[in-house]
Amino acid sequence: MIIAIDGMGGDHAPQSVIEGALQALAAFPQLTVHLYGQQEVMAPFLQQHERLTVIHCSEVVEATDDAARAVRRKKDSSMAKVLEAVKTGTADACLSAGNTGALMAGGLFKVGRIDGISRPALATTLPTADGNGFLMLDLGANADAKAENLAQFALMGNIYAQKVRGYEKPRVGLLNIGTEEQKGNEVTKAAYPLIQAESLHFIGNVEARELLNGVADVVVTDGFTGNMVLKSVEGTAATLFSMLKGAFTASTKAKLGAVLAKDGLRALKTKMDYTEYGGAALFGLKAPVIKAHGSSNAKAIFSAIRQASLMVEHDVIQTIHDTIAKDK
Amino acid sequence: MIIAIDGMGGDHAPQSVIEGALQALAAFPQLTVHLYGQQEVMAPFLQQHERLTVIHCSEVVEATDDAARAVRRKKDSSMAKVLEAVKTGTADACLSAGNTGALMAGGLFKVGRIDGISRPALATTLPTADGNGFLMLDLGANADAKAENLAQFALMGNIYAQKVRGYEKPRVGLLNIGTEEQKGNEVTKAAYPLIQAESLHFIGNVEARELLNGVADVVVTDGFTGNMVLKSVEGTAATLFSMLKGAFTASTKAKLGAVLAKDGLRALKTKMDYTEYGGAALFGLKAPVIKAHGSSNAKAIFSAIRQASLMVEHDVIQTIHDTIAKDK
Repeated sequence: MIIAIDGMGGDHAPQSVIEGALQALAAFPQLTVHLYGQQEVMAPFLQQHERLTVIHCSEVVEATDDAARAVRRKKDSSMAKVLEAVKTGTADACLSAGNTGALMAGGLFKVGRIDGISRPALATTLPTADGNGFLMLDLGANADAKAENLAQFALMGNIYAQKVRGYEKPRVGLLNIGTEEQKGNEVTKAAYPLIQAESLHFIGNVEARELLNGVADVVVTDGFTGNMVLKSVEGTAATLFSMLKGAFTASTKAKLGAVLAKDGLRALKTKMDYTEYGGAALFGLKAPVIKAHGSSNAKAIFSAIRQASLMVEHDVIQTIHDTIAKDK
Repeated sequence: MIIAIDGMGGDHAPQSVIEGALQALAAFPQLTVHLYGQQEVMAPFLQQHERLTVIHCSEVVEATDDAARAVRRKKDSSMAKVLEAVKTGTADACLSAGNTGALMAGGLFKVGRIDGISRPALATTLPTADGNGFLMLDLGANADAKAENLAQFALMGNIYAQKVRGYEKPRVGLLNIGTEEQKGNEVTKAAYPLIQAESLHFIGNVEARELLNGVADVVVTDGFTGNMVLKSVEGTAATLFSMLKGAFTASTKAKLGAVLAKDGLRALKTKMDYTEYGGAALFGLKAPVIKAHGSSNAKAIFSAIRQASLMVEHDVIQTIHDTIAKDK
C-alpha cells in the first residue's frame, strides 16, 4: 500500500512529518511512503529506508495562500502532487498537514467526488471521557448544507465507523439543540426523517452538551455548526488547561500538589489528546484524502498515516461508492 | 422598583428562589419583590419582609409542559402571572427559573415585541479566563435567523453591555468559522455588512475557539449556533471538571495533591461559575424577562434579580425601543 505524503505542510514540517512517516514505516510492514517536497529543505531530516521514496517538488502551498486557488496555481507544489498521486492511482491515499482549505478545494478539483455524493464532508474523531472517541462530520467542508447532504454524511460516517473504528452497529446521532424529534432548525428537522430512512442505527438527536460523554459513535451536522462545536470544545479545553496550569503554579503549596497529582493529570491529558486519533478525513472523494492537524507532531502524523492505511485496507471508498449507488 | 418572581420555577424551587429573593431584598433597598406561587408549597421557606408580597397562584408550569402552549393553558400559573405583571405594569421586570421554552413563548405572547424588533433573542453572560465575561446572543430563542435579525441582536447586545455591564464601547463580534470578512455561511456573510453599518464598535468575525479568552464583549449569532456553542462550552467544562475530580481521587497521593492545590482550584471554579453572572435575558420584549438557570441555587437567583434590577434602573428596554425606532 502506497501513501503519498505532503512533506511541506504543517507548522512543524518537514521535521515532524518525516519523523512520523519513519515511525509508520517501522510499524507497518505493508506500508510504502511517497514523500513529496523540497529536497533541500527535507534533506536534514531524511533517512534511507527501502519503502520510502522522496519526490522533489519546487513549490509549497502556504497557510496564507488563497484556499480556492492554491492547488490550481501551484502545480508543482507538494500538496498538488499528493492529490495528483491518488487521482492517477500512483498512491492509494494521501495526507497533508498543510492549508486545510487548499487541501479541501484541491481534493474536490483534483480527486473529484464519488458519483452520487453531492457534497464531501470533513470528518474527525474527537476524544470522549471514556477514551473511545466519536466521529463528527461535517467540520467545515461546506458552510451551508441541505438535509440530503446530512443524510449522506450519516451514511459515510457509518461506513467509516464500521470499517476503520471497528464498530459493528455504530450509534449515529444528529447534532441538534434538543433531543426531541421535532426540535431544531429547518435543516435538522428535514434531515431527521431522511437519516431515519437509511439502513443504519440512528439514535435520533444528540445535544452538544453530551458529546464528550460518548452519547454517539457518529455525530452528523452541517459544516458551520460542526466547525463551531469543534472549536468550542478545543477552545474550552485549552482555556481550562491553561487556567489549571495557572492554579498549579500560583503557590509553592499548589506546585507540590501538582507534583503529587501528576499521574492522574497526565492520564487526563492523554485521554483528551487529539494526536492519538489521527487526522481529519475528507469523505466523499474518489480516494482517501487525510488532513492532519496543522500543529501535528510526529505522533499525530503517525496516527494519521495509520488512519489512511486503515481506510485503504478496509476499502472505505469502494464501500461508500457501492452504498451510495444502491441508495439512489 | 418591583420585580415579579416565579416562585415555582427551577430544579430547587421554591427554596432556592425564595432564599435568593430574600438575599436580594437585604442587599438592594430600592427593591420590592412580588413572589408568585402556590402558598402552601412556599410557606415553609417564607419570611416576613416589608418589601415582599406573596401572591398565590393555583397552577405550575412544569419542565415537561409543552413550551408553546403552557402559559396560554395554565392561566393561573406563577409563570403566566409574572409575565402578566410586567405586561400590565404591576411590575417592572419578571424572572423565572422554570421551563425556558414556555417562558420564551409566553413572553412573546403575553409581553409582546418592541415595535420594529422582528425576533427577540435570548442572551446570557458567559465566563472568560480574565473574569470579565462576555454577552452572547441568540442562545436559542429562534432556531433559524436571517441576517437582519443578527444586526438587531448586535444593537440590543450593545445596549445591554453599555447599560448593564458598564462598557463604554463594547467590542461587538460576529461568531463565525473564520475571522476573514468573506468567511461563513449565507447568514453570517449577509449579516457582516449589516452589522458594520450600525453605530457600534464592530470588531468583525470572531471564532468559537477564542470566546473564553475574552475576544469580544458582545458575541452575535443565530439561536441554533448559539445554543450549540453554549452547550459545547458547558459540556466540555463539565466533562473536564469531572475527569479532574477523578484524577484527584485516583490515589492517596493525588488526594493529598488536591488538598494542597485547593485554593487555586477553587479560584478557577469561581471564575467559571455561571451563578456569578445572572440569568439569561429575553431581549426585544416590551419589558425585561429574565430566565434564571434551571439548576439555580440561591446565589444564582440573587444574581439574576440584580441583573433584572440593573436592566430596569438603566432603562434598557426604552433604549432598545428608541434605537430601533431611529434605525428604521
